[in-house]
Amino acid sequence: MQRWALGIEYDGAAFHGWQSQPPTAQAVVGRPAGAVLATVQGALEVAMSQIAADSVQIVCAGRTDAGVHATGQVIHFDAPVARPTSAWVRGVNALMPNSCAVRWAQPVAEDFHARFSATGRRYRYILLNRPERPAVFAGRVGWFHRPLDADLMAIAAASILGTHDFSAFRAAECQANSPVRTLTQARVARQGDWLVFDFAANAFLQHMIRNLVGALVQIGKGGAPVTAMVDWLAQRNRILAPPTFMPDGLYLTGVDYDAVWNLPMSRLDGRQGDPLQMFNH
Amino acid sequence: MQRWALGIEYDGAAFHGWQSQPPTAQAVVGRPAGAVLATVQGALEVAMSQIAADSVQIVCAGRTDAGVHATGQVIHFDAPVARPTSAWVRGVNALMPNSCAVRWAQPVAEDFHARFSATGRRYRYILLNRPERPAVFAGRVGWFHRPLDADLMAIAAASILGTHDFSAFRAAECQANSPVRTLTQARVARQGDWLVFDFAANAFLQHMIRNLVGALVQIGKGGAPVTAMVDWLAQRNRILAPPTFMPDGLYLTGVDYDAVWNLPMSRLDGRQGDPLQMFNH
Repeated sequence: MQRWALGIEYDGAAFHGWQSQPPTAQAVVGRPAGAVLATVQGALEVAMSQIAADSVQIVCAGRTDAGVHATGQVIHFDAPVARPTSAWVRGVNALMPNSCAVRWAQPVAEDFHARFSATGRRYRYILLNRPERPAVFAGRVGWFHRPLDADLMAIAAASILGTHDFSAFRAAECQANSPVRTLTQARVARQGDWLVFDFAANAFLQHMIRNLVGALVQIGKGGAPVTAMVDWLAQRNRILAPPTFMPDGLYLTGVDYDAVWNLPMSRLDGRQGDPLQMFNH
Repeated sequence: MQRWALGIEYDGAAFHGWQSQPPTAQAVVGRPAGAVLATVQGALEVAMSQIAADSVQIVCAGRTDAGVHATGQVIHFDAPVARPTSAWVRGVNALMPNSCAVRWAQPVAEDFHARFSATGRRYRYILLNRPERPAVFAGRVGWFHRPLDADLMAIAAASILGTHDFSAFRAAECQANSPVRTLTQARVARQGDWLVFDFAANAFLQHMIRNLVGALVQIGKGGAPVTAMVDWLAQRNRILAPPTFMPDGLYLTGVDYDAVWNLPMSRLDGRQGDPLQMFNH
């Protein structure tokens, strides 16, 4: 058995979330992708099982909700057969729907784990802020129709950086053991009609970013003072904080691992290969 | 009858081209959008006819091929009833699929014509240039897997500026009376893995931009010298020029009209309201 790590990009609007239910139900050779549940995991496991001519199960760094996209998802799996790198990139891509693609594949040590070895996750939220709803990028960007004060939102976002109990921004059904996370980046910047949010943390709670965006939009539209962000955080009560924002604009852009694993992300990172690089600021 | 001009944005991947066949077959009150032929014209005419409670026919500035998008399409129509501007923007948007939206509406003089009054058209082509196919923006960007020399392509593009017989880049089925067009802008620029092409002309022949992009890619990959662009143009023979490029990355970004019509495009132009502004360079 050789353990492999793969970098994955997908359009979440084309799938019903990441996870197959039951988790490995679709990892069956020859079963058409998306026949029962069109999940990203299912599409990948079906294609990879065809390449392997055997059942393949994958583990991802971060399970994304329905409608959430990824440009930098990372998975690992144990290959039941020896295949060259090109089989796990071009071979798998040839068997998958257009809305999902493998970016890179690399053999890794057997104790590497896509989820447990990860030291950080990065997400970007892209919000169209104009009166008319999006059409060209419908499903791929969030939308808010009234003017938003991005400068206020940037101040509010920065005010909750650090290690905190994020219960105020945690989904009721979140299964994490602890609500404490360390938020290392929380930026908001305007580019014309676009607002770009960048978040990084050791890990995120369920719906945490969509809840943070909902709170920042509340402040940006003048519905709460800039200091409300710290107040909501301190209250640790989901009910008292603003509603969850739509998933459409959320992208998992990267996962951080110790350099000892020698993964290719650092070489792909930044402008090279990042489909969202035109939103860089 | 009041004549109106409207600005339209759409994701061409969601429709079978612009035009209904027969042209006004879908302009029937109460007929569900896309029931027979999912064309942009059909979706608009169905929604607008519902707003008018009467049959509405529209005329566009430039009929886009199947798979081609628009951020700045312009149409005109004669309203059979008096309705406020908001009815033709928010009202129509509420009745249309997510992949099409009205950006603005404005009453115009009765001799305005979306197509015949237009003095110029602008198109942008967005090409992802990396080994792996696109996933997040599948259907919304073109793709070429081998490295392209954008500097050479920019020189080649500039070499055919001006007024020429563009038969070399004209589809066999093109119905224009003359193959002569005046190309006023032809730029190519790289942003990381993205190539952005900007073209402007008084008007374009059928498939002209996709044929120009195909020729420029041929030069960019080293399949022809930079001087080939001028040679192909001079030969005026479609068969001798490189193949048509995929429609996925092509956007009608704007239509030019004389200032006398007082249309709002100049106020919306540039960064404000342009969904492709993140590709600006």
